[in-house]
Amino acid sequence: MSIKMSKSKDILNVGVLGLGTVGGGVVSALQSSPELFDSRAGKHIKVVGACVRNPKKNRSAIAMNFPITSNPLDIVEDPKIDLVLELIGGVEPARELVLTALNNGKNVVTANKALLALHGGEIFRMAAEKNCFVGYEAAVAGGIPIIKVIREGLVANKITKLHGIINGTCNYILTGMEKHQSAFDDILTEAQKKGFAEEDPSFDIGGIDAAHKLTILASLLFNVPLDFNKIAVIGISDVELEDINYAKKLGYKIKHLAVAEKSENGVELRVGPALVPETDMLSKVDEEMNAIRLEGNMLGTLLMSGAGAGAGPTASSVLSDIVDSIRNSKLEWASTITNNNDNEPTSDIVVTAEQTIASAFYYRLVASNEPGMLASITNILAANKISIEAVIQDEESKRADRVPILIVTEKIKQRQADATRLAISEMPGILSPIKQFRVQKDD
Amino acid sequence: MSIKMSKSKDILNVGVLGLGTVGGGVVSALQSSPELFDSRAGKHIKVVGACVRNPKKNRSAIAMNFPITSNPLDIVEDPKIDLVLELIGGVEPARELVLTALNNGKNVVTANKALLALHGGEIFRMAAEKNCFVGYEAAVAGGIPIIKVIREGLVANKITKLHGIINGTCNYILTGMEKHQSAFDDILTEAQKKGFAEEDPSFDIGGIDAAHKLTILASLLFNVPLDFNKIAVIGISDVELEDINYAKKLGYKIKHLAVAEKSENGVELRVGPALVPETDMLSKVDEEMNAIRLEGNMLGTLLMSGAGAGAGPTASSVLSDIVDSIRNSKLEWASTITNNNDNEPTSDIVVTAEQTIASAFYYRLVASNEPGMLASITNILAANKISIEAVIQDEESKRADRVPILIVTEKIKQRQADATRLAISEMPGILSPIKQFRVQKDD
Repeated sequence: MSIKMSKSKDILNVGVLGLGTVGGGVVSALQSSPELFDSRAGKHIKVVGACVRNPKKNRSAIAMNFPITSNPLDIVEDPKIDLVLELIGGVEPARELVLTALNNGKNVVTANKALLALHGGEIFRMAAEKNCFVGYEAAVAGGIPIIKVIREGLVANKITKLHGIINGTCNYILTGMEKHQSAFDDILTEAQKKGFAEEDPSFDIGGIDAAHKLTILASLLFNVPLDFNKIAVIGISDVELEDINYAKKLGYKIKHLAVAEKSENGVELRVGPALVPETDMLSKVDEEMNAIRLEGNMLGTLLMSGAGAGAGPTASSVLSDIVDSIRNSKLEWASTITNNNDNEPTSDIVVTAEQTIASAFYYRLVASNEPGMLASITNILAANKISIEAVIQDEESKRADRVPILIVTEKIKQRQADATRLAISEMPGILSPIKQFRVQKDD
Repeated sequence: MSIKMSKSKDILNVGVLGLGTVGGGVVSALQSSPELFDSRAGKHIKVVGACVRNPKKNRSAIAMNFPITSNPLDIVEDPKIDLVLELIGGVEPARELVLTALNNGKNVVTANKALLALHGGEIFRMAAEKNCFVGYEAAVAGGIPIIKVIREGLVANKITKLHGIINGTCNYILTGMEKHQSAFDDILTEAQKKGFAEEDPSFDIGGIDAAHKLTILASLLFNVPLDFNKIAVIGISDVELEDINYAKKLGYKIKHLAVAEKSENGVELRVGPALVPETDMLSKVDEEMNAIRLEGNMLGTLLMSGAGAGAGPTASSVLSDIVDSIRNSKLEWASTITNNNDNEPTSDIVVTAEQTIASAFYYRLVASNEPGMLASITNILAANKISIEAVIQDEESKRADRVPILIVTEKIKQRQADATRLAISEMPGILSPIKQFRVQKDD
């Protein structure tokens, strides 16, 4: 039977795990524009049950015209349900419930990046075995349809690089620090009040959330196993207002960047603060917005920017997955996660934990204000065979006994960068720990 | 039969009309990475014939391991061909050949924006009747997968606005004028040498090419018929270096913008030069690059930027359409062009030729250098009930007898803007025709 694109009486029965911000947004959209979805999906998308922690809670934004349960098995084992929306987050019981739903032959749509980054292999194997669809557009970069674009829009391309701003909390805090000239902690508190940071923000500001998303993207981009442990993860708590302001004077913005790039050793993955040139469009992606830039062998560069979180954008992606599951219901889904693979016969791509890709580096330190400090530092750099783009002593902030010093190197490798930091920190007269961030220039 | 995603021995037989830059790029990509396409498409994509004007021409970039003909009917009537690539451009014979191919039950992939903008209705009706696929990702914004994103990625959204830079030639010329401080004609000559402008550039610089693309986008965005005649079309030949430099002083860049926006009267479409604030990411899209920004009710704003033309980017989009035709071969394609429709029961959306959406406007004129000129101008604006953001007399460029004057208004309607230009131009002491461009601010 082929899919009718319009006026079909067919119904897709959806069960929802979690009616929080995103779940509420999905149900609300379906209820407010049923004709739009009937027409565009070719089936009527009907919510036939939802599991919530507290069934008695008042949910005024949506019409509760479907049964509510607090037992998730009522959803994942209900034979009349075609598709399960997993929107409860966290690893367990989400993992168990998704595996059960797939085992029962149901398609699954999820926004759960931690689940896929840590247990995606198991989940996609089960999906392949049962020929079920696992949609996860909402798990990465919120409303930006990056999964679809990589998998389908850029299907002809071998992707060589990805640069992304994929954690809205980090971006909101870094933007806010510059805009309000405030310290990290003050902006974090404000972000929490506005809902742009969680009560426990450690996953976001520690870079874990971005690393989860990069794990998923890398698997899709390079047809590599989902392996969270090979990402170099740095958060933003080491970034101080001084760094942001010095970066600005040098012509850069500090962004929390996720990077996937091919080297001779394989695919290198990292997330961390980086100085981005003001001429780079990524430096203009501010507040809670996300952006991803891809480089492909045919396409060249593609940049996408949009909202990375929030009820509307995330529900937009969840709903596009649901419609895809209907439109593509005759596909075999086996290779969904990896179908943008790069399986040239001669190369087996692996993810390497080693960071060998060179870039410029930025250092900031405070030295005692005495003659010869700059000369000693430049001698250390020369001894390590590092060319210098700039060494600046901040005369404005100089005090009788101490002076801030900034260094921007030419391209060096992580190993060289770390060795250099160590060597300088062991010099006499260095009065502070040394800040060290990558400088991510366009090539 | 369901589609095998890998290792299938199935073959998709492709016939190519036109082996120019794009056609050559497609064939070359298929020949250089057959395993990649086999794996990602789930079928072997095989070129089994091509029609060219001159079969004897040397084509060293591709292996000519398929028959060549100069008779296009050999392609569109060949029963073994599954899919026809139309890459000859222009309206006839492309229209006739595409209709014949569809009538013979073949899917069609085309990069021909003029053809679809002017005859898309007829073509999509034939495709619906024969349940064939017409892919046209490459017709709009080159390598940017904007059609897929609108139709599938943003399927849950009602789109309210589109702002785009969708003609690379215009963008290259405007960027070059600023960068090299050169006159329009000089940069056009350079663009022609570099292949960023055609020998006859009138379609590009006159705005026709952008209007063709906007026609196609609007039909998809708002489920309206393809109607090229309702677009307000202005090219870039009226933009002078002075305008670019004055805009810069005021904090703007001049871009050739395509705009689709809903008003109370329907959908308004226009292409033309506009002042874009330097804080807007669209102002950073330079040289031959394209960009499109969409606003959707769920998603908020999505910006995509990438290469709008060239062999690689265009072939990338053509190939994604071919793979889509394979993956989705069980769909009914009837409503392909319009499936992002907005058919709320109470509203029939129409495209209106009337431009009623207000924006700020920029005027530049040269007046005789005598007391009271600025007062007279501001009196005219006041009489037309137009608030002013800025009126500037350029003291630096003042001469004994004449002085340039710039005006930026608050938001006014096109009708008011035109009336104001007329009223000022009829004042005594106005020494030049008055330049008038929209100022496209974020709302």
